[in-house]
Amino acid sequence: MKIDVSFSANHFDELQLRDKNIVVIDVLRASTTTIAALAQGAREIIPVANIESAVKISGSLFGEVTLRGGERSGKMIEGFNLGNSPLEYTEATVKGKSIIYCTTNGSVAMSKSRYARNLLIAGFVNMSAVVQSLKELNNDFLILCAGHSGTSGNFSLEDAVCAGMIVTRLQKPELLSLELTDGARAAQALYKSFGRSILKMMKTTDHGKYLVEIGYAGDLEICSGIDTMPVLPQLSGTVIKLKK
Amino acid sequence: MKIDVSFSANHFDELQLRDKNIVVIDVLRASTTTIAALAQGAREIIPVANIESAVKISGSLFGEVTLRGGERSGKMIEGFNLGNSPLEYTEATVKGKSIIYCTTNGSVAMSKSRYARNLLIAGFVNMSAVVQSLKELNNDFLILCAGHSGTSGNFSLEDAVCAGMIVTRLQKPELLSLELTDGARAAQALYKSFGRSILKMMKTTDHGKYLVEIGYAGDLEICSGIDTMPVLPQLSGTVIKLKK
Repeated sequence: MKIDVSFSANHFDELQLRDKNIVVIDVLRASTTTIAALAQGAREIIPVANIESAVKISGSLFGEVTLRGGERSGKMIEGFNLGNSPLEYTEATVKGKSIIYCTTNGSVAMSKSRYARNLLIAGFVNMSAVVQSLKELNNDFLILCAGHSGTSGNFSLEDAVCAGMIVTRLQKPELLSLELTDGARAAQALYKSFGRSILKMMKTTDHGKYLVEIGYAGDLEICSGIDTMPVLPQLSGTVIKLKK
Repeated sequence: MKIDVSFSANHFDELQLRDKNIVVIDVLRASTTTIAALAQGAREIIPVANIESAVKISGSLFGEVTLRGGERSGKMIEGFNLGNSPLEYTEATVKGKSIIYCTTNGSVAMSKSRYARNLLIAGFVNMSAVVQSLKELNNDFLILCAGHSGTSGNFSLEDAVCAGMIVTRLQKPELLSLELTDGARAAQALYKSFGRSILKMMKTTDHGKYLVEIGYAGDLEICSGIDTMPVLPQLSGTVIKLKK
């Protein structure tokens, strides 16, 4: 079982990800928000790579059962129904709805993975469900950290630490024979260095600090919870739904 | 003084790097080989992004004073004079020569940095010279790890550890007030985790193992030496020369 971790999805296109087993992580906030929306009863998440695609797809769907959610620079997109805070995706708002979802990095990574063999959406909030599913899969997989734009190329520490937590959990107990790439070994070391308190770590990362600045400190609390949303979003056709 | 580290150069184009202070690292092997060639008396290194550019530039230069060096999949390119092992770049071969240099990741990162304000080429072999120069610069800079193709997106552990060693050395003694991005903090943590023995670490990384497989175990010895080539290659016009 070979585990690969990439700290950005920029390097990949759809063809390179085709037929692979992929785990997408965008802790702050796209993967956590996807998990939250489905946990609150949304019917499905339809990830798109850009606003143009979101608008195009919206036109062909029934208005009553679809919502548009996402962000640019962390804020709600004009004409959309929802921003990118998991706190907005309440049962009252999203139950039974299809959500066309467009973010700067996370939904792009999900959209690029649309031809994956398996695609799981992971965060701290559904850690055990993801790890359990990967144990059952018992096959090679790639963790695709969406990262954030701005500094460090596309690297984001909170995504790397989350990837490292998955790798570390898979190694304990050491039942599985794991082959780790450079990226997987680095992620594991970063989890060891920064994973003691997830919330504290998040408050110090570039994107965490930015979100606090623009008024989303509450999102860091939500996104740092471990196993607080024990559900597993996965690719089903071309959309993301909960594993039954 | 803000230190940023990117684990890949893929995210950047020339315009984004324009007027910045850049340090390019490709420990295995482009940055080490560049340092070695100049330490052995090469006149200049002319980094190019692809083979077509190398051939084009060669045509306009005098054959006697120019050499073509580089690699594809770690091996010498057909029609070139030199591969990418620092051991090939001996005084007898390179003294006084201009070297058109083309590699998969390293020369691409150097070429993208051609409009930088300052560009330094760094490896373990010239660590102290790089750190000293950055202390004197006393300004924001970006470390651009070239990485390697294949696994982990473009992430390579040996480049990250080398970047982390630079960050760590700049922090001791704590004279400078440093602001570290996510990438810089991660690099520093990875140096702490994996930097105890550079050679041992290199033997376990994806690209290190690949180079041993194709017969370049000796290169790992050379590239892991610390301060064994105390020179400083830097951008001078559009080529790379030793700092006088």
